This record gives sequence, C-alpha cells and structure tokens, in this order.
Amino acid sequence: MTTVRDASFELFRRHGMTTIFGNPGSTELPMLGPFPDDFRYVLGLQEAVAVGMADGFAQASGNVAHVNLHTAPGVGNGVGAIFNARANRAPLLVTAGQQARSLITMQANLTNRDAIEVPKPYVKYSHEPPRAADVPFALAQAIHNATLPPAGPAFVSIPMDDWLVEVQPVDYASQITRTVGGRAQPEPEQIAALAERLRAAERPVFVAGPDIDASGGWDAAVELVESQRLPVWASPPTGGSRIGFPESHPAFQGMLPPAVGPLAQTLAGYDLVLVAGSSVFPYYPNIPGDFLAEGTTLVAITCDPDEAARAPMGEAIVADVALTLRALADALSGPCDRQPPPAREELEPLQAGELLSGGEVHATLAELFPAEGIVVLESPSSTAALRNRLRLSRPGSYYFSASGGLGFGLSAAVGVQLAQSQRQVVCVLGEGSAQYAITAFWTAAAYAVPVKFLVLRNNEYSILKWFATLENVTGAPALDLPALDVAATARSYGVPSSSVSGRDELHAALAQALAQDGPQLVQVDVAPGMALA
Amino acid sequence: MTTVRDASFELFRRHGMTTIFGNPGSTELPMLGPFPDDFRYVLGLQEAVAVGMADGFAQASGNVAHVNLHTAPGVGNGVGAIFNARANRAPLLVTAGQQARSLITMQANLTNRDAIEVPKPYVKYSHEPPRAADVPFALAQAIHNATLPPAGPAFVSIPMDDWLVEVQPVDYASQITRTVGGRAQPEPEQIAALAERLRAAERPVFVAGPDIDASGGWDAAVELVESQRLPVWASPPTGGSRIGFPESHPAFQGMLPPAVGPLAQTLAGYDLVLVAGSSVFPYYPNIPGDFLAEGTTLVAITCDPDEAARAPMGEAIVADVALTLRALADALSGPCDRQPPPAREELEPLQAGELLSGGEVHATLAELFPAEGIVVLESPSSTAALRNRLRLSRPGSYYFSASGGLGFGLSAAVGVQLAQSQRQVVCVLGEGSAQYAITAFWTAAAYAVPVKFLVLRNNEYSILKWFATLENVTGAPALDLPALDVAATARSYGVPSSSVSGRDELHAALAQALAQDGPQLVQVDVAPGMALA
Repeated sequence: MTTVRDASFELFRRHGMTTIFGNPGSTELPMLGPFPDDFRYVLGLQEAVAVGMADGFAQASGNVAHVNLHTAPGVGNGVGAIFNARANRAPLLVTAGQQARSLITMQANLTNRDAIEVPKPYVKYSHEPPRAADVPFALAQAIHNATLPPAGPAFVSIPMDDWLVEVQPVDYASQITRTVGGRAQPEPEQIAALAERLRAAERPVFVAGPDIDASGGWDAAVELVESQRLPVWASPPTGGSRIGFPESHPAFQGMLPPAVGPLAQTLAGYDLVLVAGSSVFPYYPNIPGDFLAEGTTLVAITCDPDEAARAPMGEAIVADVALTLRALADALSGPCDRQPPPAREELEPLQAGELLSGGEVHATLAELFPAEGIVVLESPSSTAALRNRLRLSRPGSYYFSASGGLGFGLSAAVGVQLAQSQRQVVCVLGEGSAQYAITAFWTAAAYAVPVKFLVLRNNEYSILKWFATLENVTGAPALDLPALDVAATARSYGVPSSSVSGRDELHAALAQALAQDGPQLVQVDVAPGMALA
Repeated sequence: MTTVRDASFELFRRHGMTTIFGNPGSTELPMLGPFPDDFRYVLGLQEAVAVGMADGFAQASGNVAHVNLHTAPGVGNGVGAIFNARANRAPLLVTAGQQARSLITMQANLTNRDAIEVPKPYVKYSHEPPRAADVPFALAQAIHNATLPPAGPAFVSIPMDDWLVEVQPVDYASQITRTVGGRAQPEPEQIAALAERLRAAERPVFVAGPDIDASGGWDAAVELVESQRLPVWASPPTGGSRIGFPESHPAFQGMLPPAVGPLAQTLAGYDLVLVAGSSVFPYYPNIPGDFLAEGTTLVAITCDPDEAARAPMGEAIVADVALTLRALADALSGPCDRQPPPAREELEPLQAGELLSGGEVHATLAELFPAEGIVVLESPSSTAALRNRLRLSRPGSYYFSASGGLGFGLSAAVGVQLAQSQRQVVCVLGEGSAQYAITAFWTAAAYAVPVKFLVLRNNEYSILKWFATLENVTGAPALDLPALDVAATARSYGVPSSSVSGRDELHAALAQALAQDGPQLVQVDVAPGMALA
C-alpha cells in the first residue's frame, strides 16, 4: 500500500530534495516521523531562520529547497523571509501543517483558517488540496511552479491527517514523475536585431544584474563584454541578490546608484544600455529625475514577465538571461573597432580614524578572503564598501537580500554553506541586522556548519541615519543601538566568538577564524556612518 | 497649516496612544521624526517582538496599542505575532510604511505591492488610503475597528511621502474626534429565559473563559457562581489567553481538557453548561468523540459573532460577557437550594526526582509569587502545572497566547510590564519557546523593564514528544534541543541571569531575582516530559 507520505517523499527524492529545513509543530509530526534515513532535517529555532536557510540553500545549490512550517503561526513568522525569497528568486517549496480535516470547519486551535491567503502575494502558487489523495500532486505542482522561471517560493498547506491516507496510482504515479522545463531562448529575429543595434551603437554599456549568476550566464556575459568592448556597471547593489560580472575585470566601472536621478546621470554618456538579469531598476531612495538622459536608449533582458512589464522605460526581451547572452555573444563574435572601456575610477584612499571604517574592515577582509570564498552580506551601511574592496570575481560568490528585508543574511549563510561545503562562506553582518534571525547561530553550532561570521558594530542603525538626512527627517527615535554584543550572543549559542577593534587585531582574529574548523565569529567595532568605499 | 502627521498624532493623543512600539525603517522615518515629546517609542529588534510587546501592552492596559512596522518585510516578520494578537483579542493598530506614491507602480525596492492582502486574514480592517489626505481618517477607522468587540488588530499601510501633506479640516476634523462604542447587553427576554433555565437546571456548571477577564466580568462571574452554587471549570488552557475566574475559589474544579472526547466526558455529569467568554471550544489535539454527552445542554455567551456561529453544538448569545453576567447575576440574586459544589480533587503529590519537575518549579514559584503578581506564560510543557500550582485569583493576572503560536510570551511580558508598572510581571518560558522572540531581552534591558523571567530548560520540545505519542508518530527529527542556554543569551542582551537546579537553589535564585530592580532571569534545569500538575 502507498500512502500520501510515501508518494510525497518519493517525489522529493526524485527532485533531489532530501534536505528539509523547518521548525516542527504538532501539525507536522505525521509528515516527519519516521524520518527516512536518506533525508536530512535542519532545525531552525524560529521560522524566519528556517525559511532564510532554505533560501540560501536553494540559491547556492541551484535546486528547489524544502522548508516545512507549523500551520498559521509558523507560516506567519516566516512571511518576511518568504518575501525575501521571492525577491531573491529562490525556488522554495514551503509546506505547512494544518489541523486535522475534521477540526478545520470549527476552527479548532491551530487551524490555519485562510491558509492559502497569507503567503499568496509572495508565492507563485498557494494551495490546500481538497482531498488527501491530491497532496502529492499539489506538491509536484508547487515544485514545478517554484522552479519555472522566474523561480520563487510556492506554498502547500497539508492537513495533518492526510499523510497516512492510502493513494491509488491514478492519484500520484504520473503526477510525481513528470518533469517540466521553462528556459526560453528569444526568437532568432530578436537576437539578430539586438546584435545589429549593439554593433551600431557608438557608446553602448552593459549593466550586469543578479540573474546572470542565477542563470549561469557569467561566461557569456564576459565574452560579450570583451568582444564588444563594453564598459560594465553592476545593477544597484541594494536591490540585487547576486553579482553578475567579475568585479575585478578591467571593463568593470562600478555599481549604479539606486535612485532615479543619479542612476540616469551615471548612464548619461551612453547611447545604448543593455541590462541583463535585473529589473529596470531596483530603485530605492526617492530622488526623482528623468529615467534616462536624452539620447540614451535601453534594452533589458529578463526571464520575468512582470519585471519586463513594470519598467518605466526602455524595451525588454523576456527570455532566459544566460541563453540570450550566449546567443548574442555568438552573433557578435567578429572583430570590433571600439576603444576598450576606460579604467575604473580609483577609490578614495582609506582614512585612518579612531575606529575602523567599514572600508578598512573590508580591505582587511579582502587581504584574507579565500579564492573560492562566498560572501553572504547583510551590513546595510557597508554594502558598497564590501563590493568595492572585495571585487568578487567568481560565479556564485555573493548572496544578498534583494528585497531590502533583514534577517536573510545570517540564516541564508548557514544554508549556502550547507549547499557549498567545499567553499568557505563568510557572512558579513551589522550588529543590528544580525538580530532579525539571531537564532541561526544555534543551527550553525548544532550542525557544525563552518560559516565564518564578521559583524561590524557601530552602535546605530547607520543606514536609517543616512536615510533620515536624505529625507530631511530629524529627531526620529530608536536609531541608536547601544550595548548590543553579537559576539556574546553568538557565544551563548555555541559559536566561538571574539570581539576586536583596530586593523591588526582584526586581521589576526579573521585569520584565526578562517583557519579554524566549525563556525567562528569576529565582531569588530567600527565608526558610525555609511561606508561607501 | 495642519499636516497628515499633525492630524494623525492628534488622533493618537485623543485615544491615549502615546506609546508606539516598532522597528523602524526608511519608509517610517517621515512619520517618526521629529518625535513629539509627549510620545514614547519602544524599540523591538525584530518585528515579532514589536508586535508581541504591543499585544501585551494592549491587553494589560485595556487600551488600543500602536505598533509601527517597516513596509512588506517588516509586516512579514510580524504576521505570526499579528495572528497571535487576533486570537488574543488584543486591540492593535498596526501601521506600516510604504514606498513613496510615485515609486509604487514601478515596484521600486521596498514597495509593499499587495500591502493590504498579507495581514488581511488576521486583522479586522486592512487599508491603504488612496490619497494622503485620507490617512488620518483611515487610522481612525482602524482604531475603531480594533476596539469594537471582538477586539483585534487592524492594519493601515501609509506611503512615506504622505506625512507632510497638508490636510483640510473636512478631511480630518470630525473624523479624528468621533468615538464609537459597541458593548452590547442581550435583550431582556434572553436574560430572563437563561436565568429561568439556570434556576431550573439540576446540575448546572459554569465554564470560565478568557473574555470574562478582558470584559471586566470577574466580579459578576463570582457573584453568579456563588449565588447559584455552580461548580466552575476553566476553558481549555491551551486556547485561552486569560483567566476568567479565581482559581483558588472553593467552586473551582480545574481546567477542561482540550480535546473533543475528554472534554465531553468531563462535562458528562452536568445537565446545563454555561460557557462565558470562550469559544466552544478551543480544541487542540484530535481525540474524537461526541461533543456533549447525552443529557448535557450548553449555552455560550460571547462577544464574537464568529465564535457563536462556528461552535459545533449548543446555543449562543452574542453580547458583552461582563454585562451579560451582571444581568444574569442580578436576575438570579434570590435564594438557591442547590448543594454547594464539591471540593476540587487534590493534585497528586509531587515526586522528587533527580531533576526538578515542572510541578516542583511552579510550586516553588507559588511560594514566592507576589500577591499582585502577573504571569505571562509560554512554557508549553508546564502550562497545566503552573495553573494548578499558582491558582491565580485576581483579575488581569495571566496572559497566554491563545493561538498556539510561540513568540508571544517573552515579548508580551515586556509590554504587560510597561502597562502595569505597579504590578510585578513574572514571565515563565521554556528554553525552546524563548527563542521565537529572543531579542525582547534587549528591550527589557535597554528600557529597564523589570520583568522577572523564569526559564524551564528540559533540552527538548516536550510538548511535541507528547503529541507524537498521541499521534502514534515515532522517529520524528529535531525534537531534542541540546545546548540551549537562555541565561547566557539573556545576559548577552544585558539581563542579569542565573542558572540553577534543585529546589533550594531555585527558591533562593527566584527570591533574589524578585528582590532586585530591573529585569532578572532565572533558568532552571527540569526533567524532560510534560508537567501536568
């Protein structure tokens, strides 16, 4: 006899989903026990952590990841992290337990009354099967929806008494074995026309977005950029989950600013802007202006129809980013008589102060950063400094919360490290942003996940003080964060931690942390304010 | 000139809402600064904490409380706590920032695209005003909706550029000054009929639910119970946010079990069950059976139309619980020839083991518990033991998450203590449940909120092991919680903490903590398993 549970776990196996992240409750127990030997369960002590870990794991493994939550309150705690996963295009299967079918109509305790409504705006599929026998089919649909481009989370609510119900082959056999694929190449005419337009442009420019990395388009992007001698800008870092182009490449010019006016100014000298794998654009502070300067045109390549539709200017091609870049590079492989792009502007030299700046911290990190290292970043006041100092130049080396939501960094780092056990993950956090998913330290310690954490402590929400200046706001409360000691908190969860100040001390502590097994944390005191370089 | 901000803060003032809980982001800054001198901002380091604190503050103050969150990701992190607040009937105004109006249609970063959809299932009102000038009116509606019975959270999403817009008197003056009231007494015929039915019953029983406390019906309940010589059961503790009857009263029989079959068995000897201020019933584990034994009838008094409609048996009167009990007590003030209720069954004596049991811990707490003390409870494996040992007997002495969701206890305790500065709050947590809102320790320390925390550490999710047995589940992963040290974590956030084992040591540590100023924590090692008595 085959049960809902048998068929569902067979489905998970077929998709390589043998790691389940979660925080269990009574409504999930019938799914979880007895837990199959070939599966691994990774516990988060709060649901934002469980979802964040799965987000990192999905992105870094390139496969759909499964996170299991506890009916309404568990899903509720995870909604912020699901929102992040949507922005990050992380293919996630989010499952949640539900009360027994016989107790739902009376809304017994733990009934998830409107189970599919709460996550709906942030997931690609939200369903509670009307019969137990439909559970494996619904899970299969969720997996397909999560992975089809643009990838994202999908949600299934499952009554707890469904798992042991017997299913017939008609209900599951063909449903759980089918596969779907959705990577699309644009029609040849579009490629030819865009190639011609690029060839004819006088001052074309390439804007590299996060989906180049997710789609595996890094090599094609480099080939296209080099053959066409294009200068390259990174899409605004505050809205980009990944890095799409080697930032130490001679063609790399820097990162676009994240507001309408300044961004248009940065692109003002170019006549054709080719944006690959980014929305146009992930604007953030409200600095109005023209979207593009007179004489600048724009074409965006995106796998996301919504991203294509909602851009306020330019043309868009909806297709797989890597396939499109490959086709474009192939169509443009001949000689090119453009001048090579100018060298990137030098960064301003670091100024030594009483406390280290974010730039000095990241310059120190750059000295020690492993060649195959991966950064998971959530230090809002030093995002730019990190990018400028590390100049990450390998695919899959950088993960960031594209949504602007906090809590991703600390939890996702654990998931990324679990997915990429051969590469060293360095998780860079502010002492404020570390708080949103702080219990992920416990998972790192309990599962011996060897993430190295670097926490910049400046005793304030620096990014908010910067925003307040921008918005002409004075006298807002609660922008200072006295007396947070992430090193002590991490230690309380079992992560060996040190707290340092000064560059030599930081260098020594970081070197030591990188040389140790298991998770390690270094907290460094830094000067208040934003670190842009 | 009057701005949206001026009118809104005047509205808050008129409702006594001068404490704002929150976690700020860039989209909230224009609301928050300059912060008026007569307002207080209480910072939570994660949104679940901010909402939980506001929930406790609202319930313990009896007034609507305001919590301000950061656009989509902030609301997302708070959804679980909003779900709890709904179950707890906490009148909450939940506000969230939104991107500038000019950036919403293009979905710039931090746009809350479907702002009103995510919280909608758990709030009584969810709105984003279509014009800046409507913000004060929407806030007023949210406050009215939150406070009208049944109380609960209400949500308003506010674009960040609305706050400084000028408003005309027609847009705000009458809107922010009006009041509404919704406490209803049932029609006199219903009272008379119910009084007659009670008088005629041979073996009537009273079931005391949480809304007796919230509605201020404690005295009327005691008067009715005494004049009619009714035995009293508490509604199932796993689904009740408050205590509705003095648990040391001679008429008190104990707590109803939270499953269909056992609950009906407990009530099987009675011919008329009068339920006041509880759903019928907050069932929890699935143990089927008849809802009531043959010969038992039931009448429920509730202020919640949904609670009345969804009960699977019995009759219901929708009206204010306190007013109805008062009217009923008045109608039944004459002599009564029933026998007084039997004495409550004795608890089984405590067995001393190698490690303390939950019962021994709570017996120790009972020896020291201040007369005017308040318990905020989130220790799922010792809920019953605490109730059985403390026998709380004053109104407003007990707060618990009625939803079954975790994260309420630690954060709500801070809010309750802020609202009831003259009464000592003792927050009782499991080491697992403490993790869902762990950063509330920082707020307790930073604002010197003198909650005394008592953490029972048993190195497992005991309640889940108990559920697994009930559900015949074996081999579920992640039910053990090794190496959590809440005392160390709390200390890292600035809360003085001790870790003890053994009854004398616990007694001494608790006595010392209660004698100190400021927040204090005692962690005690307890035996695994459930503590029912």
